[in-house]
Amino acid sequence: MKRTLDRRAFLARGAGVAGAAAAGLVAPAARAAESPPAVPPWMQVPGKPMSGYGSPSRFEEPVKRFVLQPYGPIAPGSGPSRTPLHALEGTITPNGLHFERHHNGVPEIDPAQHRLLIHGLVRTPVVFTLQALMRFPRTSRVCFIECAGNSNPNSLSAKPPQLPAGTIHGLLSCTEWSGVPLRLLLEEAGVDPRASWLLAEGADAAAMSHSIPLEKALDDAMVALYQNGERLRPEQGYPVRLLLPGWLGNSNVKWLRRIKLTDAPMQAKDETSKYTDPTPDGKARQFTFLMGVKSVITQPSVGISMQGPGWYEISGLAWSGAGKVSRVEVSADGGASWREAALQEPVFSKSVTRFRLPWQWKGERALLQSRATDEKGRVQPARAEWLKQYMPQQRYHNNSIQTWAVEADGSIANVFV
Amino acid sequence: MKRTLDRRAFLARGAGVAGAAAAGLVAPAARAAESPPAVPPWMQVPGKPMSGYGSPSRFEEPVKRFVLQPYGPIAPGSGPSRTPLHALEGTITPNGLHFERHHNGVPEIDPAQHRLLIHGLVRTPVVFTLQALMRFPRTSRVCFIECAGNSNPNSLSAKPPQLPAGTIHGLLSCTEWSGVPLRLLLEEAGVDPRASWLLAEGADAAAMSHSIPLEKALDDAMVALYQNGERLRPEQGYPVRLLLPGWLGNSNVKWLRRIKLTDAPMQAKDETSKYTDPTPDGKARQFTFLMGVKSVITQPSVGISMQGPGWYEISGLAWSGAGKVSRVEVSADGGASWREAALQEPVFSKSVTRFRLPWQWKGERALLQSRATDEKGRVQPARAEWLKQYMPQQRYHNNSIQTWAVEADGSIANVFV
Repeated sequence: MKRTLDRRAFLARGAGVAGAAAAGLVAPAARAAESPPAVPPWMQVPGKPMSGYGSPSRFEEPVKRFVLQPYGPIAPGSGPSRTPLHALEGTITPNGLHFERHHNGVPEIDPAQHRLLIHGLVRTPVVFTLQALMRFPRTSRVCFIECAGNSNPNSLSAKPPQLPAGTIHGLLSCTEWSGVPLRLLLEEAGVDPRASWLLAEGADAAAMSHSIPLEKALDDAMVALYQNGERLRPEQGYPVRLLLPGWLGNSNVKWLRRIKLTDAPMQAKDETSKYTDPTPDGKARQFTFLMGVKSVITQPSVGISMQGPGWYEISGLAWSGAGKVSRVEVSADGGASWREAALQEPVFSKSVTRFRLPWQWKGERALLQSRATDEKGRVQPARAEWLKQYMPQQRYHNNSIQTWAVEADGSIANVFV
Repeated sequence: MKRTLDRRAFLARGAGVAGAAAAGLVAPAARAAESPPAVPPWMQVPGKPMSGYGSPSRFEEPVKRFVLQPYGPIAPGSGPSRTPLHALEGTITPNGLHFERHHNGVPEIDPAQHRLLIHGLVRTPVVFTLQALMRFPRTSRVCFIECAGNSNPNSLSAKPPQLPAGTIHGLLSCTEWSGVPLRLLLEEAGVDPRASWLLAEGADAAAMSHSIPLEKALDDAMVALYQNGERLRPEQGYPVRLLLPGWLGNSNVKWLRRIKLTDAPMQAKDETSKYTDPTPDGKARQFTFLMGVKSVITQPSVGISMQGPGWYEISGLAWSGAGKVSRVEVSADGGASWREAALQEPVFSKSVTRFRLPWQWKGERALLQSRATDEKGRVQPARAEWLKQYMPQQRYHNNSIQTWAVEADGSIANVFV
């Protein structure tokens, strides 16, 4: 029996061609063309001049972050905007489309006036100017940041929301970050042996703060100054943010102005009133820093229509806060059977990995799912299994499997199975 | 004797701290601070709301592409703009700052109307719409594109131009490109056994064209649709460009509309009147596709002033069209002695690699150089050695070693040695 999910379908010479032709990728009329198409109008006049800083084509204007407005009766400027994952390819999120989550808007910080204080349980408190930070040795790494509230449209709603992949799962972005290892700055201040936590505070109007175990700060934490080559964008913490690879988005404190070393967590408002996980026994888990192993199919997904039966590439993103993604399986029958997808190299630790798998759609209803496994052996849970861990309306850490129904008419729906 | 170039200077616990403190990275007054700096004005009012597509901070407005205007008495919209490498970090070039080189401006192409024709020595000519291209399996890779004319301010001028690193060497950018392997599209048309070259033509007003050996097209060539996650920018060929990793920038034809398979190069205007290399014997080399092994120190460089003696991180970019960079050496004495720099992982083939090396500046004149070696054993040449290969005024393929003089007053100059 010919498989509908087949990693090698496009790889063998000829197979892809046959598949493509059979699927109507190229119309027969087009195949017969023997001369160039007519000279288009944009070849008949000189184009636009060079520019200092570019922007996308006006034809790509619909590709933007999804901003839900109004977000609710809370502080002005509080809320999220989501990366349109369904419209993107590869693994890097362009800076203009990196997701946002602010608690009182985006401050407009003059870098010449900004200061970073390290104090508390240290040998000597230190205040860093940006110029001083720039003197330290730097490092770069590609990693994701995911808001703990990502994918919560799928947990807060009884009916599956009919929203594009990015509008549900787009509180996730992936960037090449560059900056100074936090460890070096802590060594500059001198860590008191009694210190076991630190409080990181942002210079926004919410003074957004989070307590962080010192162990992470001395491991792979970075004081980030650049994203994808250029200085941080205001929405991602310009001029300086904390980067905790693989950890809860909220703990990656933006507009970083203060680090206080302490001997216990500070119970800041954003780690008590929010970002805790109510469990069925009436208690709540606190400080769930590590982001789960997770994946989502971005193409096809809601809002993308199938163009007739034939071969398609199923493609999506997988990630884990604990390390590398080791495997992504894809199902076209709602989890009854699985095929292993190809992982696009390179696979980085705590970064997103693009997976790809050719799929022959026969024009019938299909239930597409992806399931990620990470190098620690953690496996992405089914929705029902995930729900059992929490009280209803849990809004954080939903890493459960997403199901897209491809309907016989070629439309795509979000379904709960 | 203590080394001034020392890979481990910042790595050993304590050494970095001592170095930093001794260098005055943190002023003594700042070190004594025990309370947070005053609450800045931007913490006292709500910040800006979320946005659909972000842009850099207004304080980063000076970081833009360098556009030399007017470029000369040629076609409107012809000329380059350069990536400000001296202001960037990491390896990815943000899309807004990717260098430009146009021959008659940037066409404004409606993707719904755009067509890609493959014809000539093929079994069946094929016309692809964007929708048809989107049905093919995709791939992603990070690689650089470098214009053949990069760094020519250093070869066209008798005196060293006092320009920032990006203004001299910034016809170089590095991107995660995603698209369809060209091989798959050629298989769709069916390659005639007589074909050995192809002509790639752009849909700009210059109909910019380049002949390309079929071997490269069947190897790692890509029909790129996305850069750093989002659809191509207009300046980089929206909606579709050719990507030939490691090869002459000009051959990576933008706004790709036509590929004609042939049995010989077509001698297009941009491979005869330009992009050829005059040699001392009065002849000219043609079709120098492979970009040389090269590196440049981006920090410190012209326009960046030293802030007193002490430890600094020397940092820069290295790349090779032939594969991976295997080694970068740095000299602080104009090439008399060399130390090996650390290469930032990951090191990709045909991509830029960030190198880093701590340097103790003693407040005296120093001549900084970097020298790259690639995995094929090719070594970046000194300027005098490079010049010998060509007639004077050769404007292409200058991969020679850049020297920055750090003067005793902390200013930095471009020098020819």
